Amino acid sequence: MSELRQDPTTNDWVVFAVERAKRPQHMADKVHHKELPERDESCPFCPGNESRTPEEVYMYPHFAKVSDWQVRVVPNAFPALAMKGGIERREDGPFSHSMDAFGAHEVIIEAPSHNVPMALMSYDQVEQILRAYLNRYIRLGRSRSLKYITIFKNQGPVAGTSLAHPHSQLIATPVASPNYRRNFEFAVKYYDDMGRCLYCDLFLDEREKGVRVVTETKHFFVFHPYASHSPYETWIAPLEHCASFACVKVEEITELAKVLKDTLFSIYQALDNPDFNYMVLTSTTDDTNDPYYHWHIRIIPRLTTIAGFELGSGMSINTVFPEDTAKFMRELANKPEGA
Amino acid sequence: MSELRQDPTTNDWVVFAVERAKRPQHMADKVHHKELPERDESCPFCPGNESRTPEEVYMYPHFAKVSDWQVRVVPNAFPALAMKGGIERREDGPFSHSMDAFGAHEVIIEAPSHNVPMALMSYDQVEQILRAYLNRYIRLGRSRSLKYITIFKNQGPVAGTSLAHPHSQLIATPVASPNYRRNFEFAVKYYDDMGRCLYCDLFLDEREKGVRVVTETKHFFVFHPYASHSPYETWIAPLEHCASFACVKVEEITELAKVLKDTLFSIYQALDNPDFNYMVLTSTTDDTNDPYYHWHIRIIPRLTTIAGFELGSGMSINTVFPEDTAKFMRELANKPEGA
Repeated sequence: MSELRQDPTTNDWVVFAVERAKRPQHMADKVHHKELPERDESCPFCPGNESRTPEEVYMYPHFAKVSDWQVRVVPNAFPALAMKGGIERREDGPFSHSMDAFGAHEVIIEAPSHNVPMALMSYDQVEQILRAYLNRYIRLGRSRSLKYITIFKNQGPVAGTSLAHPHSQLIATPVASPNYRRNFEFAVKYYDDMGRCLYCDLFLDEREKGVRVVTETKHFFVFHPYASHSPYETWIAPLEHCASFACVKVEEITELAKVLKDTLFSIYQALDNPDFNYMVLTSTTDDTNDPYYHWHIRIIPRLTTIAGFELGSGMSINTVFPEDTAKFMRELANKPEGA
Repeated sequence: MSELRQDPTTNDWVVFAVERAKRPQHMADKVHHKELPERDESCPFCPGNESRTPEEVYMYPHFAKVSDWQVRVVPNAFPALAMKGGIERREDGPFSHSMDAFGAHEVIIEAPSHNVPMALMSYDQVEQILRAYLNRYIRLGRSRSLKYITIFKNQGPVAGTSLAHPHSQLIATPVASPNYRRNFEFAVKYYDDMGRCLYCDLFLDEREKGVRVVTETKHFFVFHPYASHSPYETWIAPLEHCASFACVKVEEITELAKVLKDTLFSIYQALDNPDFNYMVLTSTTDDTNDPYYHWHIRIIPRLTTIAGFELGSGMSINTVFPEDTAKFMRELANKPEGA
């Protein structure tokens, strides 16, 4: 039976039209994955081509010789924002507020190898990627002018990538993101009412119910949310309250790497290496220690197209219940492979 | 120079990264448009195949013989919502609110011809499509259980369509859309402060400035908004205050058809027949006569991909200023063709 479900973090309603999954071409046409070489002479991210990107701002191992790195972070050669100008607002009448495109836009080159997606990397490699995220997050977060840092990954053309070499990106803006602002206001209201973090309570509730849980480790919790906006939307969240990604403890990173890699591998298996995005959702840099928000990673396999209804209404149409997809993922996780 | 601009209808910031337009593959790869036949035997929307869709709920001419129609509206054969059940909310704990997927999902088959996009249709044909929209909007709006009606068009695979035959859709939901709810709250606050409709004031300001105006007719106004979320985002708005699409007067429909067709034809020419969405954005059916919102049509050519940054932050990255695109469209409009 189809139904509408209300997202408990925004009050937005999501349409679950599960019969609609039966219509012809209900899923985005599978993009043919080209066989990639291990190294591509023309790829600016491949070892040996370091001179074709701006100079790195982070590298692992930290004192690696050129072309001997494991993870490398460079400024985006075509940045959406840059550390030029300031954060003063300009006003050209009441309806025209602007400011400099001040910020940072970096590329995290995830590995030397051109053709191994994160789902198939070693735990150690994924751990080094997360350490690079954390290092850059904390370093940029020290700037009082950068208010919000989005770390994200676009894998595959449907998910918006133009370069095949495994990489993620970081964009730091001088303003809070609209999504964060909405989630924050909503969570503050809950905190006013209940005296607790909305997300902490939501996660407790999901763990008690169990039907949408994929897995749980000592510090992290993986589940498919009640009002998932698209099929197989997956959240990886810390069990302990923490508003900002900056408060991940170094000893938790090893565990998070294992959880992330296992989750991506399950999705790779279940959906045949789909295009996907993931985003590290966190508080503003001003709100690192606040009691309201709760950082997490959100993974969105791009199986459906965002069309006129979604753009116009802001509503999502999902074609499968998270209880069913979470169950499928739990069963898959019981047949370990890879890594 | 790149900059950030604040959307005056939401306060969301948009990144204008105009240098980014120079990067390789900055625009979504052009989808190859297949040559289509005028009639396709296998198409359920082509004349002669009427039995392959559910029975029509509207037809023009109103008493046309089978296969002799000019516009035909049918329930979607794979509906996201249907008139089954009711609108009572169910609660399975504080974080699990649901209701029946009650609503309507209809397809407006825009013309008998399989291969003529709306940009190339006659003014009369577009007028009959708009009359069908208005008829269905008003008819469904009479139901007290349907609160919000989104009329939209997905043209081309990138914009989410799976059938080539020219068509639009209508989805009626028992709840207000999230986008409307946010716009409404924002507009109510402006009305509280200023005693006037935010959109009326915004349109006056844009008409005075002129740089983002594409054209203006007796009752309608076409412009590219100051904080356009994507290249060539175009709004068609009534000059006179009106919250709901339901208050378009019948005598204005002829004029609106001309404005819509001319606008789509300009986009067709300027961007080489791009995939696009348009949406009729309107108030809830409860708020038809309110002084806050202001209905309009929003056209979004799908030239960029919605990727991890956009999904995570809710921010948009645009690569061209609306002043430049509006100027280009004004110049194009001075060389009339088509129709």
